[in-house]
Amino acid sequence: MSEATKEGLNGVDVPTLFATLDAVKANPEIAKFQFRVANQWVSGTHNRGTINGYYGAGQEHQRSGDFTFDADHPPVLVGNDNGPTPAEHLLHALGACLTSGLANIAAARGIELGEVTSTVEGDINLLGILGLDPSVRNGYEAVRVVFHVKGEAEAEKLAALVDQSRARSAVYDVMTNGVPVSIEVETN
Amino acid sequence: MSEATKEGLNGVDVPTLFATLDAVKANPEIAKFQFRVANQWVSGTHNRGTINGYYGAGQEHQRSGDFTFDADHPPVLVGNDNGPTPAEHLLHALGACLTSGLANIAAARGIELGEVTSTVEGDINLLGILGLDPSVRNGYEAVRVVFHVKGEAEAEKLAALVDQSRARSAVYDVMTNGVPVSIEVETN
Repeated sequence: MSEATKEGLNGVDVPTLFATLDAVKANPEIAKFQFRVANQWVSGTHNRGTINGYYGAGQEHQRSGDFTFDADHPPVLVGNDNGPTPAEHLLHALGACLTSGLANIAAARGIELGEVTSTVEGDINLLGILGLDPSVRNGYEAVRVVFHVKGEAEAEKLAALVDQSRARSAVYDVMTNGVPVSIEVETN
Repeated sequence: MSEATKEGLNGVDVPTLFATLDAVKANPEIAKFQFRVANQWVSGTHNRGTINGYYGAGQEHQRSGDFTFDADHPPVLVGNDNGPTPAEHLLHALGACLTSGLANIAAARGIELGEVTSTVEGDINLLGILGLDPSVRNGYEAVRVVFHVKGEAEAEKLAALVDQSRARSAVYDVMTNGVPVSIEVETN
């Protein structure tokens, strides 16, 4: 379905959104999802992630085509800028998650959105990943998000959309609370 | 510089990599980086992240062009598949970070890589983000990475590359340990 044929407030099909909630209430098992990415090394710090199939709502799903995303380091970090750094992809995931949620919540609350933009920035001291200072962590030391929300509601109600999106964001939860990650290796 | 003109083991310019380490040792201030993403809501759960400028090595940097990445929900989650879900972008960031690091570490250790692929999968129960069960978290409950590493070294040494990459991965650190995230809102 193209966006041009989408109906409903903010491009959200609100009746289907509520119907989906009802369907999950009636059968909580369909809420179990598994998402996946396959990564292939290209050269140096350049590699490519491919995203397509996932499990959810009781079955496997396949998109009409693969989504592929390159990652690399910039020249100042001895890469070739074939894509953003992985650490920038991480910030993108956060901004995207908060924005997708915000649009759904606004539609559910009957608030028409105008422009919604945000910036996500993260401070990182590379002494950590370079192994040069054990007191410096590998990851971001702090991440800041600034939302600019325009819409047909008073400021308090627009700000509350961001609050609720944060309160229900999968990526915000993982980035602030962490998640267990297991890593296995198969060789040659 | 195109990849075709890159030199060095695994496409990594090892002398420059070590020179960069020496430069940072001599002036640790240049290790302070800031990465940024700008996100723009498009319609419904569809939004677009733009990545370009960053601060690092004592100055602002701008790439030759923007990197843009769409995110959306799939139809089963009332979206239109205009891009992967934000939660899938998150998995991509992890796979990419571990792979970029692995290639650098292999080059520094003099190990020639063959094929390096990995899969990253995450289990998520949407009862959390749908607000239907307060005992279920919003984010992934578990993430699993499986690496397949081929290269000119014994299995133990190839597996050790993944271990060291994990030990120095910015995204792995954030995803397993969390990071403080602040969110501000400006309205209308």
